[in-house]
Amino acid sequence: MNIQLVGLSGSLRKGSYNTALLQAAAAMLPPDVSLTIAAIDDLPLYNADLDKPAVADRPATVVRLREQLAAAHGILIASPEYNYGIPGGLKNAIDWASRGEDAPLRHKPVALMGATISLWGTVRMQLSFLPVFQYLSMKPHYQPEVLVNEAVKKFDKGGNLTDVATREIIAKKLQSFRQFILDGLA
Amino acid sequence: MNIQLVGLSGSLRKGSYNTALLQAAAAMLPPDVSLTIAAIDDLPLYNADLDKPAVADRPATVVRLREQLAAAHGILIASPEYNYGIPGGLKNAIDWASRGEDAPLRHKPVALMGATISLWGTVRMQLSFLPVFQYLSMKPHYQPEVLVNEAVKKFDKGGNLTDVATREIIAKKLQSFRQFILDGLA
Repeated sequence: MNIQLVGLSGSLRKGSYNTALLQAAAAMLPPDVSLTIAAIDDLPLYNADLDKPAVADRPATVVRLREQLAAAHGILIASPEYNYGIPGGLKNAIDWASRGEDAPLRHKPVALMGATISLWGTVRMQLSFLPVFQYLSMKPHYQPEVLVNEAVKKFDKGGNLTDVATREIIAKKLQSFRQFILDGLA
Repeated sequence: MNIQLVGLSGSLRKGSYNTALLQAAAAMLPPDVSLTIAAIDDLPLYNADLDKPAVADRPATVVRLREQLAAAHGILIASPEYNYGIPGGLKNAIDWASRGEDAPLRHKPVALMGATISLWGTVRMQLSFLPVFQYLSMKPHYQPEVLVNEAVKKFDKGGNLTDVATREIIAKKLQSFRQFILDGLA
């Protein structure tokens, strides 16, 4: 079987280290794993009045994201930390995917990575996701943790992840997440 | 002097209990306090590429929000809890107001309220704001806490806050927040 991952980047800027982290991961996947990065920049701000029980009544970009997430075996999030928390835009995407009988996040394996130019590697962002995963009955994959600090030293100017130790930890993360997903399917 | 508060509602739906909570607060302010509810539903999703150092280069709705917050003596947030966390749309507004030398949230007094139809009164949402306040060097006002659970019993069908105990705690909160702001100005 082919294990399909959907990637979500918590940063919408063009030269985002976190989007680059997802792209680096996409280039070193195990042979039976594929990764598609889903767009979250075209979602409206969450409004419960628009989050209709009937799928077709939801905004089109929301329907698309929910379908992408529903079809995935696992979700790989790479995000910066904004103000010691989850970026609002990323949480907005999670909120849009969280409700209804067809909620696509429920029981879904999920793994976190984070890159930052600062020293602490998005630790607080990753911590603040734990209650979100708990509420949504998601299946978080924990070890190894991918905390990329001082990103400016670890990517080249073209946005390529060049740091060897970081590449190794991501490869291990992907192998471990793959096995975690397979164990859950068994 | 007149103490100016800006209110932020974490829910964008029309019949929001949290917007109604802000409106209830606006109707029972101490005589020297005023409250304006700021719009956050017309902000784009945060994108660091658009968060320019030069004020005039930021999106117009962002400039407006930042100016409203900068002019306020304190910020009163009323928010639901989405997936055990801060609603993405509200965090998005905070993120837009967080950066730059003119960042309007720094050292700003802030108070939280929350209403929910469930039992636990937005406790987790309020907790997850603490590191955000910490990072931004804001001045959070803690006591009394306003946690409005089972909101459907506490508002009438027109969105008026009718529960006497809740009205009393909000009146106390506003008095205490007013004093907290005055003490900080002294």
